[in-house]
Amino acid sequence: VGPEALSLWKSKSTFTSFGVFFLQMGWGDLGAFGEPSKETPNLDQMASEGMLFLDFYTASPLCSPSRAALLTGRLPVRNGFYTTNAHARNAYTPQDIVGGIPDSELLLPELLKKAGYVNKIIGKWHLGHRPQFHPLKHGFDEWFGSPNCHFGPFDNRALPNIPVYRDWEMIGRYYEDFKIDLKTGEANLTQIYLQEALDFISKQQASQQPFFLYWAIDATHAPVYASQRFLGTSQRGLYGDAVREIDDSIGKILKHLQKLGISENTFVFFTSDNGAALISAPKQGGSNGRFLCGKQTTFEGGMREPAIAWWPGHIPAGGVSHQLGSVMDLFTTGLSLAGLQPPGDRQIDGIDLLPAILQGKLIDRPIFYYRGNEMMAVRLGLYKAHYWTWSNSWEEYSKGIDFCPGQNVSGVTTHTQEEHTTLPLLFHLGRDPGEKYPLSFASDEYQRAMERISVVVQQHKANVVPGEPQLNVCDKAVMNWSPPGCEKLGKCLKPPKSDPKKCFWPH
Amino acid sequence: VGPEALSLWKSKSTFTSFGVFFLQMGWGDLGAFGEPSKETPNLDQMASEGMLFLDFYTASPLCSPSRAALLTGRLPVRNGFYTTNAHARNAYTPQDIVGGIPDSELLLPELLKKAGYVNKIIGKWHLGHRPQFHPLKHGFDEWFGSPNCHFGPFDNRALPNIPVYRDWEMIGRYYEDFKIDLKTGEANLTQIYLQEALDFISKQQASQQPFFLYWAIDATHAPVYASQRFLGTSQRGLYGDAVREIDDSIGKILKHLQKLGISENTFVFFTSDNGAALISAPKQGGSNGRFLCGKQTTFEGGMREPAIAWWPGHIPAGGVSHQLGSVMDLFTTGLSLAGLQPPGDRQIDGIDLLPAILQGKLIDRPIFYYRGNEMMAVRLGLYKAHYWTWSNSWEEYSKGIDFCPGQNVSGVTTHTQEEHTTLPLLFHLGRDPGEKYPLSFASDEYQRAMERISVVVQQHKANVVPGEPQLNVCDKAVMNWSPPGCEKLGKCLKPPKSDPKKCFWPH
Repeated sequence: VGPEALSLWKSKSTFTSFGVFFLQMGWGDLGAFGEPSKETPNLDQMASEGMLFLDFYTASPLCSPSRAALLTGRLPVRNGFYTTNAHARNAYTPQDIVGGIPDSELLLPELLKKAGYVNKIIGKWHLGHRPQFHPLKHGFDEWFGSPNCHFGPFDNRALPNIPVYRDWEMIGRYYEDFKIDLKTGEANLTQIYLQEALDFISKQQASQQPFFLYWAIDATHAPVYASQRFLGTSQRGLYGDAVREIDDSIGKILKHLQKLGISENTFVFFTSDNGAALISAPKQGGSNGRFLCGKQTTFEGGMREPAIAWWPGHIPAGGVSHQLGSVMDLFTTGLSLAGLQPPGDRQIDGIDLLPAILQGKLIDRPIFYYRGNEMMAVRLGLYKAHYWTWSNSWEEYSKGIDFCPGQNVSGVTTHTQEEHTTLPLLFHLGRDPGEKYPLSFASDEYQRAMERISVVVQQHKANVVPGEPQLNVCDKAVMNWSPPGCEKLGKCLKPPKSDPKKCFWPH
Repeated sequence: VGPEALSLWKSKSTFTSFGVFFLQMGWGDLGAFGEPSKETPNLDQMASEGMLFLDFYTASPLCSPSRAALLTGRLPVRNGFYTTNAHARNAYTPQDIVGGIPDSELLLPELLKKAGYVNKIIGKWHLGHRPQFHPLKHGFDEWFGSPNCHFGPFDNRALPNIPVYRDWEMIGRYYEDFKIDLKTGEANLTQIYLQEALDFISKQQASQQPFFLYWAIDATHAPVYASQRFLGTSQRGLYGDAVREIDDSIGKILKHLQKLGISENTFVFFTSDNGAALISAPKQGGSNGRFLCGKQTTFEGGMREPAIAWWPGHIPAGGVSHQLGSVMDLFTTGLSLAGLQPPGDRQIDGIDLLPAILQGKLIDRPIFYYRGNEMMAVRLGLYKAHYWTWSNSWEEYSKGIDFCPGQNVSGVTTHTQEEHTTLPLLFHLGRDPGEKYPLSFASDEYQRAMERISVVVQQHKANVVPGEPQLNVCDKAVMNWSPPGCEKLGKCLKPPKSDPKKCFWPH
């Protein structure tokens, strides 16, 4: 496909809808990426009909910052989704977080809306649960899902269970109205989320309106769940059952687009918000293939993600791209699909992937690996330089919290924060994707690569204006005690007195 | 494909040739198995046109015993390719080995020959280099390649360089006549081996004779090499260059079969003799994906192999099989293709894979993981029980010899030989393909699985009659000083006095 095809499409097509599947899945969880049970026929088919991205990254090894980055096209350190409570700490939006997505941030749906798009989020929002952060105040027209992660408080009733919203109001709570059987792992939520997607797509097709559908469901996040039809069907246990159900659902959504005749007008992207959570393994944890460590870390296992672009009639089937990509690119690419330019009044980190996808171009760009307020590493071409290394603290590790189970690379998977800013650890990810063999500092190769990388890092650091950190303050009073709509359901709880504190982020 | 198709093929087809690509490559070295650089388009295409085996094993984590097992259909402990010099030691056929394949063993080419097949081995024989072990004395009609591994003595001239044979006689030696530039990794041997294959196939097609072609080349074994056209073309360094050249060659061989119109009469199988040698990483070592450890070990990384069956018009394209398979099955399957039964006078470990391949059947059978004279582990269904664990000795490990670089599973990747025969370590390879989480001994799952496994192990042990060990005695006098044909070339060397000794096998 050459530039002609691109312009041809731009002139012919009246509009292009945009679908994003954004899940927590590891690089190694898909058959197409080498999962040995090969139980993702629909995702594998999506890849064979579309394009596989082999060098695609999230913007943070944790969920909230990654999601904020996708929707703003900006690094968490810019959009405020980080903490300065301690150095290089992962932070997110639990129920007691005070912060959330600032009004000053422009989200993809806000911009698409101006171009006539109807936007829906299905699943986990995770950009703040207080009223001012509500997704319908940030460009989404519809929402079905939860503001926070479903992992707690697991129906202990002393604290509010996570609410499930339809649009402006809650319609129930996890564990109370939307059951997850923690013993068997049974829950029919993925089926509900699937139906929401199918219905929304049908409605948009009927009204001939372009749409942005953000399908951000949580079945592979601990506590992992699957509906009864899928329980026990995977070789991989409950986690595999959940993956199979997601795979099945994605297959159904893609087929639905095809059946409605709008697949050629819908660009769909599949990727993940962080690497598989190896602390939940083996029962509830996925796979990062041969990459080092997992979620919470800036090793490849924490941030390299499976990624597939699908757009029948536009993307050549069976394509493979080595374009260094980022979830932040989905912001810019989404705008590009709508014929929009990214906002010019702020730094945008995402790039438009369409030239890479439609014309096979390779755009030279670095990938920055952040953990909280620190740039831990940078990738340029096939080189990755670690300026800081850390898995987690000895204190946590000694309690059995292990982000790199079965893996131990001396001087790399460190349990103290190790600074390498004057002499970064350098890896060649082609020869050594597992980050096991740092290049010799004395080698010509090291010198040559670091010369180029240093310039890029200097430029980057000079251009980062950190946003106001949103993840510093926690307060039990802001939990989901009384979300809008709770009165109708008799589900309002009484909040305690406000007592704001610095949030504690252990890793 | 049902039984009808199988019988239809059996009645219609006059003969079926058999091609085996037998290389040293790890599970994770192919794009189809998740190698992140995805540089094996031809093997990936072979997989998409044929059938991928995801649960396929070699018979030993080292080359010679695996090769002996493939050609005899029998475990090394039966065919003599093991040592009793020490417990559970890997042994092979270096230049000073006295033993080799016993005359009493029936090799696949010997049997196929009786059915009118013409058999050629291209590459590394490795079943003994003394005259009585010559491949042409064991059923092969043609040979182009070497009797031993090309890794030493690296042209130091104090010891004989490994000879290269054409049929009965040597035609030169590695490093002298068949150059490998150890600095650049350049060698054109794969091109020679490719041409030998193409010529042989053309000749057989012209004479309308069925053939068995055993393409067992050594480019991915350290010292790794590639020809100039491929040097520097891989993201993975020299090892990747070698893989790319092999991939390219296999593509050319398959296309040649198609061009000659005999692809539907040629069953082709690709697999590997052991896991990638992680001790050679990162520069010369491949990848075992997410599996534990590598060559020399009985963990999955040492023995689970990439495997592809290809037979256009017979094997449904894009198939995937979870049949537990073994290189020994290629013996029985090869016989089956020729309409032959395996010999009835001895225990054959290989099974006929055609029902699995053509009819999608799953045949229940265990996989035994041997290291030398010891059954270290057994797989039954998705369970793998370790009766012994060992990576290598502390002495070796402290010298930097590491079969599991970057990996460390406490109590599993042990540096002393640990016996677990009364209470085996049990893993579920579906949930935990990386062998990181042994099941709790007290669990019902452990009890149920071990009940079944114990029976299988008991039966197996009762039926193993160990062959005379061939890899116990070494003698410098038997090295390739004066191979047949050396006189014509002026390349005969004078052997030292015979001084047979117990071979030393450190791991």
